[in-house]
Amino acid sequence: MDTPVSPTVACIGGGQLGRMLGLAALPLGIRMEFVDPVVGAPAGEIGPLHIGELDERGVIRPLLERATVVTYEWEGVPADIVSWIEEQRRPPVYPPAAALRASQDRLYEKTLFRQLDVGTPDFLPVDSFADLEDAVAVLGAPAVLKTRRGGYDGKGQHVLRVPADAPVAWAALGGVPLILEAFVPFDRELSVLAVRGRDGSTECWPVVENHHSEGMLRRSNAPAPGLTPELQAAAVAIATRMLDELLYVGVLAIELFDVGGRLLANEMAPRVHNSGHWTIEGAVTSQFENHVRAILGWPLGSTETRGVSTMLNCIGVMPAPADILAVPGAHLHDYGKTPRHARKLGHVTVVADDADTLHDRVDRVLAVLPADG
Amino acid sequence: MDTPVSPTVACIGGGQLGRMLGLAALPLGIRMEFVDPVVGAPAGEIGPLHIGELDERGVIRPLLERATVVTYEWEGVPADIVSWIEEQRRPPVYPPAAALRASQDRLYEKTLFRQLDVGTPDFLPVDSFADLEDAVAVLGAPAVLKTRRGGYDGKGQHVLRVPADAPVAWAALGGVPLILEAFVPFDRELSVLAVRGRDGSTECWPVVENHHSEGMLRRSNAPAPGLTPELQAAAVAIATRMLDELLYVGVLAIELFDVGGRLLANEMAPRVHNSGHWTIEGAVTSQFENHVRAILGWPLGSTETRGVSTMLNCIGVMPAPADILAVPGAHLHDYGKTPRHARKLGHVTVVADDADTLHDRVDRVLAVLPADG
Repeated sequence: MDTPVSPTVACIGGGQLGRMLGLAALPLGIRMEFVDPVVGAPAGEIGPLHIGELDERGVIRPLLERATVVTYEWEGVPADIVSWIEEQRRPPVYPPAAALRASQDRLYEKTLFRQLDVGTPDFLPVDSFADLEDAVAVLGAPAVLKTRRGGYDGKGQHVLRVPADAPVAWAALGGVPLILEAFVPFDRELSVLAVRGRDGSTECWPVVENHHSEGMLRRSNAPAPGLTPELQAAAVAIATRMLDELLYVGVLAIELFDVGGRLLANEMAPRVHNSGHWTIEGAVTSQFENHVRAILGWPLGSTETRGVSTMLNCIGVMPAPADILAVPGAHLHDYGKTPRHARKLGHVTVVADDADTLHDRVDRVLAVLPADG
Repeated sequence: MDTPVSPTVACIGGGQLGRMLGLAALPLGIRMEFVDPVVGAPAGEIGPLHIGELDERGVIRPLLERATVVTYEWEGVPADIVSWIEEQRRPPVYPPAAALRASQDRLYEKTLFRQLDVGTPDFLPVDSFADLEDAVAVLGAPAVLKTRRGGYDGKGQHVLRVPADAPVAWAALGGVPLILEAFVPFDRELSVLAVRGRDGSTECWPVVENHHSEGMLRRSNAPAPGLTPELQAAAVAIATRMLDELLYVGVLAIELFDVGGRLLANEMAPRVHNSGHWTIEGAVTSQFENHVRAILGWPLGSTETRGVSTMLNCIGVMPAPADILAVPGAHLHDYGKTPRHARKLGHVTVVADDADTLHDRVDRVLAVLPADG
């Protein structure tokens, strides 16, 4: 019998994802420490928060001394710092820098998907207005011009409804590396979350249906309504191919388009993901717990559902807790952030045994969920 | 729409119960602060820990300034400090001092049970050896001599197998107020956990079957195997009578003897309780979340089960996390305490959809759970 030593996980980034990782880690006897430039970042309530830039070696180096493993909670973490930690050889850092790099550049990301026979919308790189005109000629319109790097929550994107929109789109985004993506008339947006352990074992949660507006996730339904075994298998195949190719360790999220039952990959996030928050109450093992299990080399937990769930983001303003908690099966998650327009402040997961009950409960929550001001 | 202000809960005591209260409170947007004499007490990892005696007014007074509500996590908290906080009138403190006082003296506690028509083993107060001889003559043997105050986890008790054991028992415990309890040939030990809100609403979790050895809880099976609606109703009636009589707010635990299907009350704990730890994964709402909901005046959550559960205490030594997590449905809770003989260091809750699966999983956990050294 080996006497366990309390592991320490160093996490680059101290937002709500770090906070929820910490809440999952603490009962397992794991200490978490966080690096974030923001004093008062959400994870600071669950573990020591070291203030510094996300790639500030002077702040990160002492953490490497005491960390069992390093991880990160945002795909905006500079990939170079993750590569640098990998070069130190210990402690290990997961997910691997290669996955982070791929996720940070839409061109690399989509090229990787294609290399692994994962379908994506058609795309072309755009580095000049001439490139854009050529790309529009090939891909047609509507199409979406996106920055290759740095876009999130709908930022750094411009829709070309017709080819003549090209100059306006170029004026809005030109000057940095871009990509033009053919607009796919998808039926709905899905995501698949998967986790891979250090021993190469993998688990996938059921595919989730996501509803965005103004570029931000508003709602996830888990499992995706009407999810067939075939669709789940197709998503698992995509996720497993990505995980194995990248020798990935931890949770990976892949956003998908459902186009008449065919799945196209949109983008990936090498981290726990907003569309997986429902797993805290709605699955046997949450994405947060499985991420820490994976990076520590511990056995993965079951990703089976417990009933059916809907996750609703609280954006810009939090509801009154008592209003939410009056609804049966509703679970409130407040990230402890200062309210601000278009900011994700928390979420509510509603769980029920069946879809009809879930629907009723979600309606009750929606009735008391305030609109962003 | 009222803009919610983050509530602060001050908790007297910073042990594992405080820690788990804090873990339940944080996602609800609640800050918790703790008072405990021990530097490094378990709750210190989840909120500010103020070092001081549990009745140290100089430490507690500043907390009252910023606390929305005060609670405590141990029945050993001096009742006078709770009364003193009640006298300040704000913030409120729950559960009420009257409940704490009753629970701290076995004579008052059992008298209260009897006053409310709740059956208990027969008992008599013992303040002298002559009292003991008289009590043994009335109650017979076997019987259990207990200190009226301060006993827990099997301490402060002495079994009289025959009347002639009286001198030895007196030698062991005499000099403080005592109580002699008739030994009841019970079939099994049960407990009922209930919660009462500030509006007087109550909820009960299903009755649990408990296994003790050496005076310490080792295992809880939830619901109690063979739990009938009649037995549950009887336990709910007992709990509700106690809650209403005491104008109780928060979670109350009552330990019961099952004597041929008749319930006798053994003792109560005015706090979240070890036999309710299974509710974290095994019920829709955990005892910890419902306690904070209750004391803040928020709606209570459902106490329905999610599957069947067994909770196993980790005493003296923690298992290797990977060994536990390899078992499907097993959830590890490490309190972050320094290992020591006979010390509760953590627990494992095993959840399954049916009793057979649960049995198999529990066997697998027991096989890797190290024995106390």
